[in-house]
Amino acid sequence: MQKKRVKISSPAAFIGMDGNGIISFGSGQPDLMPPKQIFNDLEHTRLFKYGLIKGDENLREALAKEYPNAKSEDFIITNGASEALDLVFRAIYAMHGRAKVLLCQPYYYSYPPIVEYAGLVPVYTQLKEGRIDLSDFKKKVRGVKAVLINSPSNPTGRVETLDTLREVERITAKLGVYVISDEVYKDLIYERENYLIKGKHVITINSFSKTYSMCGLRVGYLWARDPKIVQAVVDLKVHTSMNTNILGQEMALRAMSVPRSFVAKQTAIWKERRDFIYKGLCDIGFSLWKPEGAFYVLPKIRNSAQVVSDLFYDHNVIVYDGAWFGAPGRIRLSYALDVSQIKTGLGRIKEYLKGRESWLK
Amino acid sequence: MQKKRVKISSPAAFIGMDGNGIISFGSGQPDLMPPKQIFNDLEHTRLFKYGLIKGDENLREALAKEYPNAKSEDFIITNGASEALDLVFRAIYAMHGRAKVLLCQPYYYSYPPIVEYAGLVPVYTQLKEGRIDLSDFKKKVRGVKAVLINSPSNPTGRVETLDTLREVERITAKLGVYVISDEVYKDLIYERENYLIKGKHVITINSFSKTYSMCGLRVGYLWARDPKIVQAVVDLKVHTSMNTNILGQEMALRAMSVPRSFVAKQTAIWKERRDFIYKGLCDIGFSLWKPEGAFYVLPKIRNSAQVVSDLFYDHNVIVYDGAWFGAPGRIRLSYALDVSQIKTGLGRIKEYLKGRESWLK
Repeated sequence: MQKKRVKISSPAAFIGMDGNGIISFGSGQPDLMPPKQIFNDLEHTRLFKYGLIKGDENLREALAKEYPNAKSEDFIITNGASEALDLVFRAIYAMHGRAKVLLCQPYYYSYPPIVEYAGLVPVYTQLKEGRIDLSDFKKKVRGVKAVLINSPSNPTGRVETLDTLREVERITAKLGVYVISDEVYKDLIYERENYLIKGKHVITINSFSKTYSMCGLRVGYLWARDPKIVQAVVDLKVHTSMNTNILGQEMALRAMSVPRSFVAKQTAIWKERRDFIYKGLCDIGFSLWKPEGAFYVLPKIRNSAQVVSDLFYDHNVIVYDGAWFGAPGRIRLSYALDVSQIKTGLGRIKEYLKGRESWLK
Repeated sequence: MQKKRVKISSPAAFIGMDGNGIISFGSGQPDLMPPKQIFNDLEHTRLFKYGLIKGDENLREALAKEYPNAKSEDFIITNGASEALDLVFRAIYAMHGRAKVLLCQPYYYSYPPIVEYAGLVPVYTQLKEGRIDLSDFKKKVRGVKAVLINSPSNPTGRVETLDTLREVERITAKLGVYVISDEVYKDLIYERENYLIKGKHVITINSFSKTYSMCGLRVGYLWARDPKIVQAVVDLKVHTSMNTNILGQEMALRAMSVPRSFVAKQTAIWKERRDFIYKGLCDIGFSLWKPEGAFYVLPKIRNSAQVVSDLFYDHNVIVYDGAWFGAPGRIRLSYALDVSQIKTGLGRIKEYLKGRESWLK
């Protein structure tokens, strides 16, 4: 059946649009399975009463053991990393009023609205080759109250170097600027180790969605070294959503207890896909940054809005417009697909680009 | 072990303070069990992927069938009624800016902060005998953008009359004021039928927490007849928390399919407890409104802050200070306890009041 052609102006247009032979490079959702243990014997858990606003004590203790010098009382379990970000920015507004927040552009598309909904003002530093450009960062960080970084990055797929992260740590500590480090892809790095930024001004955000393929269960967390931030977030959450769903927390705790080889195996699969899509896009003639983490690529292409529309309506392929991420003239592809699907999708894109090769220049 | 005596200034002080022989009339949490069917075979559900922001289609269709002339697309499933309220007020702020919201006093303690966090300004109408006083309501409703009502009421335990609800419906429709009707206790009414306020300006909020004793799973919903409100809430939720946890939604759907006798049996238990605690408190000499719904009583007592502290530290009984609900000179008791515990708790309260009878006058 012919799809009725309408203007596509945000990722929301594609929600629920899978099946029917569509290859979706759209949503950043693992297609892999979570550890099977998380589902065992749930009927015996009897987890249906209100829990602590901060989250289950056992889960917070397990998390504290994963980080150096961390205390369980500094963690708050949230409805995914999304709620963690929302609450942190609302807490900063409650503590400091209408302040500026530095975002890296290109950005994950939720960042600017989350900052604005909290009553804060986003300002932007331009990434260079998909990573922080320290000279621009140093200029833009002056006068802001918080910086949001995201390494590995959605949508650039890049991972910050250790030197950059140390420099961000140093500058922000000196200026008294919070660093909110969204590390939801930290277990999906192919090129180097993750560096954990240190200091009382640092708020680490993570989730179980990507590492354990359990997006829909919505369990994330934040770890703030400053007890004032912890308290401000709890003060909000007790009214705005109360405890994070308690069964999801139990499943997250179980996921943490599976052997680490589970994560290693998944990362190996992601790396194979990364290699495949990177080579495939290069072969087609795309210009793009090599992904170092997460599962996104952000290749250049002219007329990106038309490309998104044409690929969807004429070729059954979903890609996202880079403009939605502050990266006009690019498209974002998630490679959370098995290699055979990636191959089919790339074939369709190649077919579409016949006669349009100049759009890649 | 002697508890260290500290100032108790909010319900948060009591979180996690059960066990050890404490009788808690504090948190409004059913002690009853949810329908056992909700836990069956969860390991086969495979519900771990992102879901629709609005919530599962089957669950929304089941809800739409429960209300006259309702459409599934006008429902949004949320992380409990708390998130539904938070998102509705944030949506009103996004659409109308810094507007006034009319709250009924005494109020559920989360209402003023939720309204304020959203950037809105709470104003108050004083309840009379625990119910809306239409003459005061008519004065205070002028100039507000929204009214929040809660029948049955936490903390008064009162249920609005049909005449009052029809008059609220008429006045707000005429003035173009939203009515947000928090009906989380609507299945716990002992005295009369619930009346569903009608009109495009009405937003109904409910949850599965109280009816099905599944508080910790955090599944609630809102039903807005105005598609602009629905869209504004979705626009927020896609960034602030994404879909509500998908396993909780599945369990809510299962709860809805159990025979209605489940709810009737629970209501019978609540009514027995209501009768028991009401008579018990009257016998002690308390002056209080007879609860008509929900599971709260709000008796009068002088020195309520000291009473809360003394009962906790010296008599192992938790009650909440009415002042936390905008009702100074009263205490709130939840009777979500079995009759034997209520009896023990009332015995301790009676013991404490020996020689303090004048505080009840």
